[in-house]
Amino acid sequence: MNLKQHIEIMLPAIEKELQDQVARLDARLTSHFHEMLTYHMGWTGEGAGREATGKRIRPLIVLLATASLGSDWKTSLPAAAAVELVHNFSLIHDDVQDNSAKRRGRPTVWTKWGVPMAINAGDAMFVISNLAIMDLIKVHPAETVVRAATILHDTCLDLTRGQFLDMSYEERNDLGLEDYWPMVGGKTSALLSACTHIGALLGNAGEAEQEAYRQFGFHLGLAFQVQDDILGIWGDEAVTGKSTASDLVEGKNSLPVLYALGRHGKFAERWKQGPITAGEVKAVAAQLEEEGGRSYAEEMSEKETQIALGHLSKADPRGAAGESMLELANMLLKRNQ
Amino acid sequence: MNLKQHIEIMLPAIEKELQDQVARLDARLTSHFHEMLTYHMGWTGEGAGREATGKRIRPLIVLLATASLGSDWKTSLPAAAAVELVHNFSLIHDDVQDNSAKRRGRPTVWTKWGVPMAINAGDAMFVISNLAIMDLIKVHPAETVVRAATILHDTCLDLTRGQFLDMSYEERNDLGLEDYWPMVGGKTSALLSACTHIGALLGNAGEAEQEAYRQFGFHLGLAFQVQDDILGIWGDEAVTGKSTASDLVEGKNSLPVLYALGRHGKFAERWKQGPITAGEVKAVAAQLEEEGGRSYAEEMSEKETQIALGHLSKADPRGAAGESMLELANMLLKRNQ
Repeated sequence: MNLKQHIEIMLPAIEKELQDQVARLDARLTSHFHEMLTYHMGWTGEGAGREATGKRIRPLIVLLATASLGSDWKTSLPAAAAVELVHNFSLIHDDVQDNSAKRRGRPTVWTKWGVPMAINAGDAMFVISNLAIMDLIKVHPAETVVRAATILHDTCLDLTRGQFLDMSYEERNDLGLEDYWPMVGGKTSALLSACTHIGALLGNAGEAEQEAYRQFGFHLGLAFQVQDDILGIWGDEAVTGKSTASDLVEGKNSLPVLYALGRHGKFAERWKQGPITAGEVKAVAAQLEEEGGRSYAEEMSEKETQIALGHLSKADPRGAAGESMLELANMLLKRNQ
Repeated sequence: MNLKQHIEIMLPAIEKELQDQVARLDARLTSHFHEMLTYHMGWTGEGAGREATGKRIRPLIVLLATASLGSDWKTSLPAAAAVELVHNFSLIHDDVQDNSAKRRGRPTVWTKWGVPMAINAGDAMFVISNLAIMDLIKVHPAETVVRAATILHDTCLDLTRGQFLDMSYEERNDLGLEDYWPMVGGKTSALLSACTHIGALLGNAGEAEQEAYRQFGFHLGLAFQVQDDILGIWGDEAVTGKSTASDLVEGKNSLPVLYALGRHGKFAERWKQGPITAGEVKAVAAQLEEEGGRSYAEEMSEKETQIALGHLSKADPRGAAGESMLELANMLLKRNQ
């Protein structure tokens, strides 16, 4: 079985588990509340469907981790749902915080129902993730449930830390490379490391094995984020698509930018003068590349990828699920195997 | 030992546990983030001190419930902290949702640090409550921890339901008495019932006993809320203090108001015409009283109080802690024993 086949089997099970979890709000008085969550999850409302749900990468990683230990991935479904619900809770609140009107091409929850309702919808999504992880008690010993929940909660605290750093950076103009990793560690890597860690725990991995899975997820997250930073400036969409989509226009403190700020060259000078306009994007991106921002980021992405793969090799995932996890990692990092 | 003495012993322990839990954010990069939470908790910043912390009623109830079963209340401290953190997380988000500039006489978190940071600070407070309840594992069996956490999470879902109803009522003008109880059940009673329920669980109560404690907390919450509704219209502050503090001016859908709306009299007519001004408060309150809003609410408060006390009697709390819990209930309901 390859990754595509794993996805075909696992995805409907993930979607069913998610829908069952969110259905906790599906009652007479709260059907409209329930609708806010099903809309955000991509199941209902205008534009509902595969495009709107997202790829469910995180729950897939949980299930593949469990399966790659020779255990039954179905016993990890509540945990897979929990991490995806955490991800989506953070998206609902992020969209309010960033004042983003669109998500996956559709109006965001706050755009449709207002900020107060969106905050509450995010809170509910978060609570349901907590209830989902507790559902593991149906098939796992209580000690394991407490351990899995603690990993998830620790991760959520990391998410709020990363979000705090990200938001506080907006007011600073003295940022350097050292500010990048703690933010990205919280915002992207924490949740991916929880996926591989919890998946391994539920697959009955030993302590050392769990740690290898955890580290694999963490560095996969870092490599993925750096890759995403590069594409946000030099990717097809950023360059040839509408230039307003460029991370440069959005003022994002990505790795290439923070690297170049430390060089104090022409790019840094321009960056500190205020927002880059769509018309400037090509020239500023070229300047940033000339000052080494791109090659530095590519180097870092490759370095984190190698660290991630080293941990994966140490984790020694078994069988077809192990191969699918490697395939998924390569897909995320846009690498050919 | 009476209630005053219980409070003198328990309160410092509660405060220490809360500070230790919140200190999870006390690190080099997130000290400013940590400060948002310590400020809201009333420990730091302008106006810090006893007036700013609130009374910590909820954690006291958890500890008294455990102690009233003859168990060591100290083993319930992480749970006591967890419920107080949940309460405070909801306050931080409520203040954003209600656009409230002040809380306990001090600027709210969003007023000081902006809405995006306040949403994130509330999220972090919530995550820390989840981590606090997991800390029970240090002294309780894993099965008990999972049970306590599940009770807490179910309660949080009720809180978001209550909040949803409360916010959605703002857009409606067809509200009736039947709309009151589901909202109040979520907004006030759910957390109080979690306090008595979890306190009893951790005190090793049997199933029937736990249910009696839970019901006591739930109806105590209903009686307390109705009492609060009455004071918000006819209490000293609402009448003789600045009339802008009246729930009538704030347009709150309290029990006396919903009762009178169902009578379709002069009060209902005026209410539907838009906001009550400070100058009208006395006359409108008198009209509401004439139409039976006050006596109906007093009747309901008394009814819920009797139900609560009936469950407490069935729960049969022991010793001095049991008497202190009754004293606390009477204090909350502003009754003489």
